[in-house]
Amino acid sequence: MLLRSLLLLLVIVGAAPLCRADDGYRLWLKYDLVADAAQRTQYRAAAQFISSNGSDVVLKTAAAELQRGLQGLLGQPVPLVAKAEGAKRGILLAIDPSANISGGAASKDGYRISMQGRNLVVTGRSGAGVLYGVYALLRQVQTGQPLAGLNLTSSPRIQYRLLNHWDNPNGTVERGYAGSSIWKWYELPQLLDPRYTDYARANASIGINGVAINNVNASARYLTAEYIQKIKALAGVMRPYGIRVYLSVFWAAPKVIGGLKTSDPLDAQVKQWWAAKSDDLYKEIPDFGGFLVKANSEGEPGPQDYGRTHADGANMLATALGAHDGIVMWRAFVYKAGSADRFKQAYEEFKPLDGTFAPKVLVQVKNGPIDFQAREPFHPLFGAMPKTPLVLEVQITQEYLGFASHLVYLAPMFKECLDSDTQTKGPGSTVAKVVDGSLDQHRISGIAGVANIGSDRNWTGHPMGQANWYAFGRLAWDYTLTSKAIATEWTRMTLTREPQAVATIVDVMDRSRDIYVRYTTPLGLHHIMGQNIHYGPEPWLAEAGRPDWTAVYYHKADSVGLGFDRTARGSNALSLYSPGVQQQWGDPKTCPLNYLLWFHHVGWRQPLSTGRTLWNELATRYYTGADSVTWMQQRWASVKPQVDAALHADVTARLDIQRREALWWRDACVLYFQTFSKQPIPAPFAPPTRTLADIKTLVNLYQLK
Amino acid sequence: MLLRSLLLLLVIVGAAPLCRADDGYRLWLKYDLVADAAQRTQYRAAAQFISSNGSDVVLKTAAAELQRGLQGLLGQPVPLVAKAEGAKRGILLAIDPSANISGGAASKDGYRISMQGRNLVVTGRSGAGVLYGVYALLRQVQTGQPLAGLNLTSSPRIQYRLLNHWDNPNGTVERGYAGSSIWKWYELPQLLDPRYTDYARANASIGINGVAINNVNASARYLTAEYIQKIKALAGVMRPYGIRVYLSVFWAAPKVIGGLKTSDPLDAQVKQWWAAKSDDLYKEIPDFGGFLVKANSEGEPGPQDYGRTHADGANMLATALGAHDGIVMWRAFVYKAGSADRFKQAYEEFKPLDGTFAPKVLVQVKNGPIDFQAREPFHPLFGAMPKTPLVLEVQITQEYLGFASHLVYLAPMFKECLDSDTQTKGPGSTVAKVVDGSLDQHRISGIAGVANIGSDRNWTGHPMGQANWYAFGRLAWDYTLTSKAIATEWTRMTLTREPQAVATIVDVMDRSRDIYVRYTTPLGLHHIMGQNIHYGPEPWLAEAGRPDWTAVYYHKADSVGLGFDRTARGSNALSLYSPGVQQQWGDPKTCPLNYLLWFHHVGWRQPLSTGRTLWNELATRYYTGADSVTWMQQRWASVKPQVDAALHADVTARLDIQRREALWWRDACVLYFQTFSKQPIPAPFAPPTRTLADIKTLVNLYQLK
Repeated sequence: MLLRSLLLLLVIVGAAPLCRADDGYRLWLKYDLVADAAQRTQYRAAAQFISSNGSDVVLKTAAAELQRGLQGLLGQPVPLVAKAEGAKRGILLAIDPSANISGGAASKDGYRISMQGRNLVVTGRSGAGVLYGVYALLRQVQTGQPLAGLNLTSSPRIQYRLLNHWDNPNGTVERGYAGSSIWKWYELPQLLDPRYTDYARANASIGINGVAINNVNASARYLTAEYIQKIKALAGVMRPYGIRVYLSVFWAAPKVIGGLKTSDPLDAQVKQWWAAKSDDLYKEIPDFGGFLVKANSEGEPGPQDYGRTHADGANMLATALGAHDGIVMWRAFVYKAGSADRFKQAYEEFKPLDGTFAPKVLVQVKNGPIDFQAREPFHPLFGAMPKTPLVLEVQITQEYLGFASHLVYLAPMFKECLDSDTQTKGPGSTVAKVVDGSLDQHRISGIAGVANIGSDRNWTGHPMGQANWYAFGRLAWDYTLTSKAIATEWTRMTLTREPQAVATIVDVMDRSRDIYVRYTTPLGLHHIMGQNIHYGPEPWLAEAGRPDWTAVYYHKADSVGLGFDRTARGSNALSLYSPGVQQQWGDPKTCPLNYLLWFHHVGWRQPLSTGRTLWNELATRYYTGADSVTWMQQRWASVKPQVDAALHADVTARLDIQRREALWWRDACVLYFQTFSKQPIPAPFAPPTRTLADIKTLVNLYQLK
Repeated sequence: MLLRSLLLLLVIVGAAPLCRADDGYRLWLKYDLVADAAQRTQYRAAAQFISSNGSDVVLKTAAAELQRGLQGLLGQPVPLVAKAEGAKRGILLAIDPSANISGGAASKDGYRISMQGRNLVVTGRSGAGVLYGVYALLRQVQTGQPLAGLNLTSSPRIQYRLLNHWDNPNGTVERGYAGSSIWKWYELPQLLDPRYTDYARANASIGINGVAINNVNASARYLTAEYIQKIKALAGVMRPYGIRVYLSVFWAAPKVIGGLKTSDPLDAQVKQWWAAKSDDLYKEIPDFGGFLVKANSEGEPGPQDYGRTHADGANMLATALGAHDGIVMWRAFVYKAGSADRFKQAYEEFKPLDGTFAPKVLVQVKNGPIDFQAREPFHPLFGAMPKTPLVLEVQITQEYLGFASHLVYLAPMFKECLDSDTQTKGPGSTVAKVVDGSLDQHRISGIAGVANIGSDRNWTGHPMGQANWYAFGRLAWDYTLTSKAIATEWTRMTLTREPQAVATIVDVMDRSRDIYVRYTTPLGLHHIMGQNIHYGPEPWLAEAGRPDWTAVYYHKADSVGLGFDRTARGSNALSLYSPGVQQQWGDPKTCPLNYLLWFHHVGWRQPLSTGRTLWNELATRYYTGADSVTWMQQRWASVKPQVDAALHADVTARLDIQRREALWWRDACVLYFQTFSKQPIPAPFAPPTRTLADIKTLVNLYQLK
């Protein structure tokens, strides 16, 4: 009895050291002991053994993950046995390729969890399916759901669910705010950081099945024999978790490392080089995922350097993949200097190519037409390229959303895009249906999130940034989940299970993105942030390397009003959308206020649907947005007793920063735009106590070397 | 009894979780339970309470650190009491400003540990002195020394013992190989990473009392009001550990952030600007340490831009510090393009300024004349500026010593410099005596180590890199300690206390730097590494931004021989040294082989003191050096049972990388130099099986974007 107590104690302490601050490393995979004793007893009764008899490597992972999770949650080891034990109740894991789980091309990843006699059975059409089922089952236990009568079927709606890492070979991360890259290239392949495995676990637990490991502004070195060995080592860590490795490639690699005179995609030697490289990769990494390409964009080389099209380039790479099971994701994020409206550039370059891409090519399109602004209308290419599968690219890292200092829960933003109705095949032609391939009956489908992951102990810098990683994975799996449901799930797994605290935190999360938009870029303002670094406000920016890198290019403030006229009277970018969308957005009276200044130059004294003039509405949003951060602070303070102390203090401090910077944004923008509107700050708001010159000084220091 | 067992178990588990891999985070401050029960009993008997009644903030830290350390080591809490308890034996901590502890200007940091009656008393002439004494006492227990009759007095030989962080505001670390910066500027001052405190503890435990927190290639932003608040927050974490914060400053700050038209040090407004800035700093940070300056070096601005001297610049800053207790460390690392021999540049610029620097100025000189090569002769400025206190700057981060992949214990390198005899005031005029001020009776003295610390969980990337941080601190305190003694101490605190394993590890550490030199730059070769990145070999580098950034500039290989003639027949850099040194090094027959090619162009067939020709000796060193890595691997493998498994595996993997790269260096260098020597690889060594072209390909990829 004493010994048993001691052992139990060891298990408890081992799983969750008492009095130790939560450093966030475990993410949502906490697996702390189920606190409710009665519930724990029920779970224990249902999980007396785990049985899994296949040799599939991912199936083995599923069994190990289930053991690990249950050991923590139930506070006792659950044996892995070869065969179900007669009288006991346990959990069976089974691959059944012919299992009836709906879901199209992505269905091999689906799972069913059901009772069969006294046992729970997790069935997948593949090892990965079982693994996803296991995580779903653990989630049930983590969030305190009953297992009795469980009957759960789920299948991902999108086939390729990728993280894109903008990680550089030198260990920096472009637009990363959580330390350095988690990949340690100088240590690979000899040394495998244990963190790689924890990373793979976290991704698999939310259904992510692919990782493009390097920056789209790619180095050629990843295609050298030396680096292929390093990538192979990483792929070996990912494979047991059902994750495939993809590579961003540097278009000029045949010249730079291949010694060829050209990188022309129609050149025979170039074709041969890529085909050989592809063979090299598959020889070492049989499940290599394929290529991600940024070409002829922001100074990167590409097929246009040789008078060829994006399709020529993408198709050549697809041919190079040959019979290997890989894909090409070709990014549509392109814009040329001098174009009248950057908004239209990607559309103009890619729309004419629809129907010319090889079957293995997907075109990867950002959620909006400019560049991951806090709010953008959906990209006009969605719905406009019915013959081409489009990957939706969203940004999880908060490049334009406050770095790791601002609490901004991004699921509402992802959802806003996915739920947008392109109307290209009538009402209900949502971006989601374009992306999952259902609208145009595509065989393949994909979604990509630019990762917010770095070397910081807690992975994401802001502890609440973990929720954005989580939400991306969950939505990639099933975009019909609501933002609130995902936030609730994550909060219960990660922060607290006390119902009132959960409700409070979820409420804060759910409103956070709208609050951020209000104090930074309300009413459809966009691209008015600090140049280069994209930190803080700089709406006065008028000189930059090119016009479309300034702020004035986008907000077009003048004595008359504010906003970019993209109607037929202006750049006519609106014409890229389907007639129904044009009709709604083309009239400032019916255009949603959230998109107003995206499409219209509106007079300062123009009354809006809120009853306020543009200027008064603008100022009101800046002020109420900044004040809402105080509300967030108060709500967060109220959950202090229910949340780990160290983690609570961390978020509290970041909210202080956020409040300070919200005021910074507010003051910068109202003071700057006031120089055009010549209107007073409307009551009841008090004018800023600092001058525009003061604010500029504060902002300018972030432009210093 | 049961309860007590349980509590004890909790304490044990809390201190050293069973079955958990050692991730290296705790560094040498492990404080695991003393394994020997008899010894533990003795320690417990001697440490039944801690008494400390001063209010000094550092004294309070000392008491807390002693409690924390003893709780782990003894497995039981040791109460902190106001007064010694009659019958019990305990530890008294006391500040006694008049205590007789030798040590000159640095002696306020000294301590005495002695028995007084039944109690151990740790006396310091300041709180910091007590803190250092406490760490020394804990070290005694950690390394298993008896406390009975302990009578230990120690005082640092050097007053300012600094780490220099080459950390940038964007979180990158110049020449950092352990992740990103530990300073999180976007989170400060609101959020204080707990890591800051752990960093301060580690430094204090080895006697470091100052930290220059930012890169010498400095951003002006650190001098803005916003950043001063951030620095103040860091200083607040450091202060209780007796550590002062210093700032690297950007010379052009008065122009860039001050709005002045000039940064001329003799301009009245510039003087006023710096004086006001200094006041701002001291207002917020009363114990601010002072300024570190890189000026007119590698493109940085400086007083020479206005026709002024380094002394003009340094003295102006010293004046700006006014009555505040701060110093100026002015770096002598300067070299101009076009100079005939970079070796001489710093000397030529600084030697004439000797005697013109203000009392608060120290000139900071790298250990050698070029730039932190694996082996350099001591810098000729040591001994040449008797009227100026010189700070010795060494590099702990392994910029030219294999990054975080190579096991290279640096204490022998630091010692080699410190022990070098400048002979400027007769034999025994060592660099150490120049630096500690004793040779020229300076009031102030300093030493700086460029940190190898980053965000990696284990702080230094290579687990054995921790020993270099440790050794720097210990030598800064007392340069008479031997490399082996420090390695032994560190190993016993960090890796194992099993005597045979300790001996084996110390042996590997102690030989490691010589081994590294052999397989990379034997016989005095230098600066033949990969350009820019400084990774791998690139002796063939002949084109770069300037001649002294190439490799051929330094090795001067030709059909006749190898090496840089720095005698009177050549650049005559040798003439910068005192006659005694010139005499020994000026003759290739008496010049130590380790420095031979630093000073002489030697014929390929010239016989050396080893009996081999230059070529054969060179090849022999490359081959035996690379083979010695195999020896290191074998020795390390032999201690596997005595070292934490995860840590052992980590070092094992890095040794694999080191072996691979040693062969890379060997093959690159012998094949390249062979193109000049036209000599065969001497028996018994087998010629490389790859070609020079092969190797170049391997190296070139690290120059790819």
